[in-house]
Amino acid sequence: MNFELNEAIALLERTPAALAALLSGLPEGWLACNEGEGTWNAAEVIDHLIEGERTNWMPRLAFILQEGEDKPFPPFDRFAHLAEGEAASTDERLQTFKAAREESIEKLKSLVQSEHQLELTGMHPAFGVVKVRELLSTWVVHDLTHIAQIARVLAERYRTDVGPWVEYLGILNRTGK
Amino acid sequence: MNFELNEAIALLERTPAALAALLSGLPEGWLACNEGEGTWNAAEVIDHLIEGERTNWMPRLAFILQEGEDKPFPPFDRFAHLAEGEAASTDERLQTFKAAREESIEKLKSLVQSEHQLELTGMHPAFGVVKVRELLSTWVVHDLTHIAQIARVLAERYRTDVGPWVEYLGILNRTGK
Repeated sequence: MNFELNEAIALLERTPAALAALLSGLPEGWLACNEGEGTWNAAEVIDHLIEGERTNWMPRLAFILQEGEDKPFPPFDRFAHLAEGEAASTDERLQTFKAAREESIEKLKSLVQSEHQLELTGMHPAFGVVKVRELLSTWVVHDLTHIAQIARVLAERYRTDVGPWVEYLGILNRTGK
Repeated sequence: MNFELNEAIALLERTPAALAALLSGLPEGWLACNEGEGTWNAAEVIDHLIEGERTNWMPRLAFILQEGEDKPFPPFDRFAHLAEGEAASTDERLQTFKAAREESIEKLKSLVQSEHQLELTGMHPAFGVVKVRELLSTWVVHDLTHIAQIARVLAERYRTDVGPWVEYLGILNRTGK
């Protein structure tokens, strides 16, 4: 096990800035591209991250701390953000994500103040018993998943343009398609 | 084909800041972790990116513009950076990459000033004839490959910590291992 709360927070608090540094001001062609029908563009990934701040990570943490294993926490709708259809620019989305993340980290720090709380357990509707530590680790890896996804989505745009180099570019050979 | 020089530059100039936002000041546990024996940690990936600025992208572009298809360009040693063993901190590496990238983009702008140059051709030692446009597209996708790689390397550190969520986290199921 490698999880340390302060290290996890160090990563969680960097994600919004990393995404902003990559995406803010980027030409629309990059921001609008996706990996084909039914896949997300960068803006939709940010919406998904915002949705996670609002309905997944800290709500689930609070639920575990309050209910323990007695009640399964409500499932998280991974596609909720697509229904909302917010008409925000990418920069507004990045700002919203940054603010929501700051709020989540504030909340995390106030809710988890001792090591033993990391071992407290809740009831995942599909997995059964899960620990606070596992939830928080997942939050970090979920960020990294979506940073990697955005890089992959952007790379996809040049699939044909790279010509014969496609062979050397692992990122273009990773999608399960 | 999607390649546009100004859009490619927009992405290339964002990579150093995106990596700095993610990695600068991150606890050593994150910076030192890799995906196991023979794989790179984040610092080694940055060294590889620096090496690319010095010996791959702009040198190859200049070579194509000068030699055309007459001479194959020297192969790029993708592991050169590992031999150098520079004793630099991650922040120093990030600074070096930022400066080297700025210099590369300056050079790119001075070397390529018209659309038709994108179609000029050179001789790749393995692939045969390649276009300037393909080289530059590859540079962009190469950046994105390594952004995704760093995210994947960091995620690997919590493989066990996420517990049952490993099933939902695609990034932990992507390595060919």
